[in-house]
Amino acid sequence: MSGAGFVSFVGAGPGDPELLTLKAVDRLRRADAVLFDDLSAGPILAHARRGADLVGVGKRAGRPSPRQDHVSRLLVDYAAAGGRIVRLKSGDGGLFGRLEEELVAVRAAGVPFEIVPGVPSACAAAAACGIPLTRRMTARRVQFVTGHDAAGRLPEDIDLDALADPRACTVVFMGRHTFPALAAALIVRGLPPNTPAILAEAVSAPEQRLQRMTVETLAAELAAYPGSAPALILMGPLAEGGDA
Amino acid sequence: MSGAGFVSFVGAGPGDPELLTLKAVDRLRRADAVLFDDLSAGPILAHARRGADLVGVGKRAGRPSPRQDHVSRLLVDYAAAGGRIVRLKSGDGGLFGRLEEELVAVRAAGVPFEIVPGVPSACAAAAACGIPLTRRMTARRVQFVTGHDAAGRLPEDIDLDALADPRACTVVFMGRHTFPALAAALIVRGLPPNTPAILAEAVSAPEQRLQRMTVETLAAELAAYPGSAPALILMGPLAEGGDA
Repeated sequence: MSGAGFVSFVGAGPGDPELLTLKAVDRLRRADAVLFDDLSAGPILAHARRGADLVGVGKRAGRPSPRQDHVSRLLVDYAAAGGRIVRLKSGDGGLFGRLEEELVAVRAAGVPFEIVPGVPSACAAAAACGIPLTRRMTARRVQFVTGHDAAGRLPEDIDLDALADPRACTVVFMGRHTFPALAAALIVRGLPPNTPAILAEAVSAPEQRLQRMTVETLAAELAAYPGSAPALILMGPLAEGGDA
Repeated sequence: MSGAGFVSFVGAGPGDPELLTLKAVDRLRRADAVLFDDLSAGPILAHARRGADLVGVGKRAGRPSPRQDHVSRLLVDYAAAGGRIVRLKSGDGGLFGRLEEELVAVRAAGVPFEIVPGVPSACAAAAACGIPLTRRMTARRVQFVTGHDAAGRLPEDIDLDALADPRACTVVFMGRHTFPALAAALIVRGLPPNTPAILAEAVSAPEQRLQRMTVETLAAELAAYPGSAPALILMGPLAEGGDA
């Protein structure tokens, strides 16, 4: 089933069209088809040439969406028909972007591909807050975790001790609904309740909102008002003087 | 000392000029001065306008280089003289880019600034290897650590248990010389010696080199031939079928 197609998995960055890489723009311009998620739509797609197929395959937490195996099959079908396919993923595709399943599918089908890395939303969130993710003396380790498993629950096999280290900077992806449970588990394991925490919503978009709290107060806030905008949670020895 | 200057801290990405963001290119074009490290020189600087001051302030592990306080002072001095200053940092400036010290300096001097995030070298390394950094079932946590402290030694206060988790994907920055000691400490704490490991050198540059080994064999290799090219080490449940 190896056709003449070529797939570029392209990280679109956090949402701001100016945070596309030159390589992402090039691949969009040359694409015959672009398969995109909800989060990476809009002005970014304007780089595609007129006449290219623009195919939304959105998977957004909490909403019904195409099944992953359907997306993988669609990708392989497009590639088999020939041409240049861009699989656009928000942020960096390799970070919680479900890249693995699609890589397995294109490899199995013998479709040649490349991966174009992008600006992770976590890096954009820290930049928007005016803080570094690492600090030379106090945050020598930074870790990214997902706040929900395939069923939308807090993953059971997550290393809570690693996350409870108050000297690490931790970014929780898709953790809005499970953060109260996560925070409680981490506080039991020794994370100080007053550890700084930032809720970063709609990072790099015009409606971006940054709120600085503590792990304890953010957990209480999200328990009361979970909200629905895409959000990242940063916690740890976040630098003083930031803009959130 | 608040002049009319404005500082853009710009992540230049891993080295491939095509992995610059559109925003980075824009800031380079409009800059009156660009302060850059060794790693981000070359074609990237070609985006600066003719006549802009291009100032190398390189700090490269293992080589004599300007002191950090000197770099911070230079940055503030340029800003005080007015104009648009770009402080170019390789990868994403917030990840082991010594951004914190310079932020403290520009804040203290009252200089307005922005942070433009970039593509981290860790994301580019995984992309070059054809693997995702996260895997839905087996690598729900990804962590970035530095392999050396200010004195070039393995940081003493690093959370070894967190790094020894075989279900996490770990990327070690600047770990070439200390990896044998780190690997030994992690194996004592339960990391299987045959955990997959990748040495990624000169990521995204023409001389890029990717070698897949195990934690144990990579440690032995680096103990014998530490080498000197910029390198990242990836370890953990790295996907099968990658290109390294």
